Amino acid sequence: MGKDIHAIAIHGGAGTILRSKMTEEKERDYREALETALDAGYLVLDQGGTSLDAVEKAVNALENCPLFNAGKGSVFNAKGQHEMDASIMDGHTLHAGAVAAVRNFKNPITLAHKVLVHSDHVLLVGEGAMEFAKPFDLEIETDEYFHVDHRYAQWQKIKGSDSFQLDHAKEDKKYLGTVGAVALDKHGNLAAATSTGGMTNKKFGRIGDSPLIGLGNYANNKTCAVSCTGSGEYLMRGVTAYDISCLMEYKGLSLDEAAKESVMNRLLALGGDGGVIAIDVKGNISMPFNCEGMYRGMRNSGGKEISIY
Amino acid sequence: MGKDIHAIAIHGGAGTILRSKMTEEKERDYREALETALDAGYLVLDQGGTSLDAVEKAVNALENCPLFNAGKGSVFNAKGQHEMDASIMDGHTLHAGAVAAVRNFKNPITLAHKVLVHSDHVLLVGEGAMEFAKPFDLEIETDEYFHVDHRYAQWQKIKGSDSFQLDHAKEDKKYLGTVGAVALDKHGNLAAATSTGGMTNKKFGRIGDSPLIGLGNYANNKTCAVSCTGSGEYLMRGVTAYDISCLMEYKGLSLDEAAKESVMNRLLALGGDGGVIAIDVKGNISMPFNCEGMYRGMRNSGGKEISIY
Repeated sequence: MGKDIHAIAIHGGAGTILRSKMTEEKERDYREALETALDAGYLVLDQGGTSLDAVEKAVNALENCPLFNAGKGSVFNAKGQHEMDASIMDGHTLHAGAVAAVRNFKNPITLAHKVLVHSDHVLLVGEGAMEFAKPFDLEIETDEYFHVDHRYAQWQKIKGSDSFQLDHAKEDKKYLGTVGAVALDKHGNLAAATSTGGMTNKKFGRIGDSPLIGLGNYANNKTCAVSCTGSGEYLMRGVTAYDISCLMEYKGLSLDEAAKESVMNRLLALGGDGGVIAIDVKGNISMPFNCEGMYRGMRNSGGKEISIY
Repeated sequence: MGKDIHAIAIHGGAGTILRSKMTEEKERDYREALETALDAGYLVLDQGGTSLDAVEKAVNALENCPLFNAGKGSVFNAKGQHEMDASIMDGHTLHAGAVAAVRNFKNPITLAHKVLVHSDHVLLVGEGAMEFAKPFDLEIETDEYFHVDHRYAQWQKIKGSDSFQLDHAKEDKKYLGTVGAVALDKHGNLAAATSTGGMTNKKFGRIGDSPLIGLGNYANNKTCAVSCTGSGEYLMRGVTAYDISCLMEYKGLSLDEAAKESVMNRLLALGGDGGVIAIDVKGNISMPFNCEGMYRGMRNSGGKEISIY
């Protein structure tokens, strides 16, 4: 701990990620992608940038990678479309921006950041969010850009059925796809960002925890910044992101104690799988998950760590 | 306190409700409408029904009354349409159901209750929510049903501008319109329900706190049931409904202390106007608001109370 301390943590989703089913090549691809995102965010912090910009840049890198369920790698919904959700929060001002059910934006988290800065509102959905975006020079991509073969194959398997899947769940294998980042900048400010493509074959305009402040994403300089990943409905009912903040503020738990209590006890008691990445103003990082694996990484002045299991 | 204790509280929105601008007739209309809703919910409880059914019935009555910004009395958005949001939560199971940006449903809270019971999801939006509703026999109304003259006049005043209003804000008069109910049933279970027509002239698919679990609505038998009303974006950033629950669970505050801390201190510190109704498993009720007035009422075996200022 000291002056100018800065740190970042990221995740690329959690679930039944089994070592036995992972090839060496695939694992290397995931690790490289996580490192690229981690470094992109850390560079912003190291150069004195804000935690908001750092989490946006880190999430952009994950959104641009087809391996993760966000941005380019977003899953197909029941109509064969890609509908994405994202949210970002500033721990200094408690301002937040979020979008849900948006299409064709290359980087939904960048759109959410525009909502944070330029709107009196917090959450914009669907066509309305797209209309809001018009004055801004955001990158729009074609449907083809979002067509990733392994996502299409996942959808084809359950298309037309009533099933929906959290990303590429198959048989006993579940991967609950979301990406996120939390950071502390040199100015002492926290921020959190989360972005997702939702669930394969999802119907009925379902929205999960990712774009919802306090549920899938939260930041407050008094306590922590948190990004969640996992079974969204359980994270919503557990109000998991804000729960961790409250365990610190009202019960006096440390970041690690609070994150573990919320994920390993409270979320499990509801029946929910998942994990979180969390950071406090001292630069402490906690990344608990209650399932087999979570793609994750952290970097501070002491070095970096990337893990899956 | 004792066996078979049951109680209900309702609200019809909060804001700059000034006694000086209220006629006797108007005040009588509001009081009568509140009493009708209160009695409808209380009857369910008294007959041994569930708190979930009681809050639904109370909110139905408020939704069917043109005085409040929900259901029939919903305000006009920028397109001259009525887009409504609602959420309901079961304090016993922590199951929840919510809908946002739905049109033409006479009673959005009844649709939210269907989501709670019949869906694995928590939050459905727009067309998707309407598709989900198809198998259920829910009352659908024409656009004409939702055309209420004073709402139309409010919209005409700011139509085409960039302004938006929380219900019938005019000059210095702000009324932050939402309706809600919280209840404790004879089985010892809590429930909360909230329903709204949003903001006059709202654009960009804006969604406020009302349909969001933990933000505008929350219920948990361990702590309390809460329904919020006020400036939605501040209630979202404050995660107000769950904040009250956490102040009780983690800090050991009483229901009244927790509700007041959250509304009178924390929400105000963010700059937000509004109020909440809250109930705990002992049947204690707290209804703090940090603005001039809140349409509200409560009823238990000891009698009933209806208040505005």
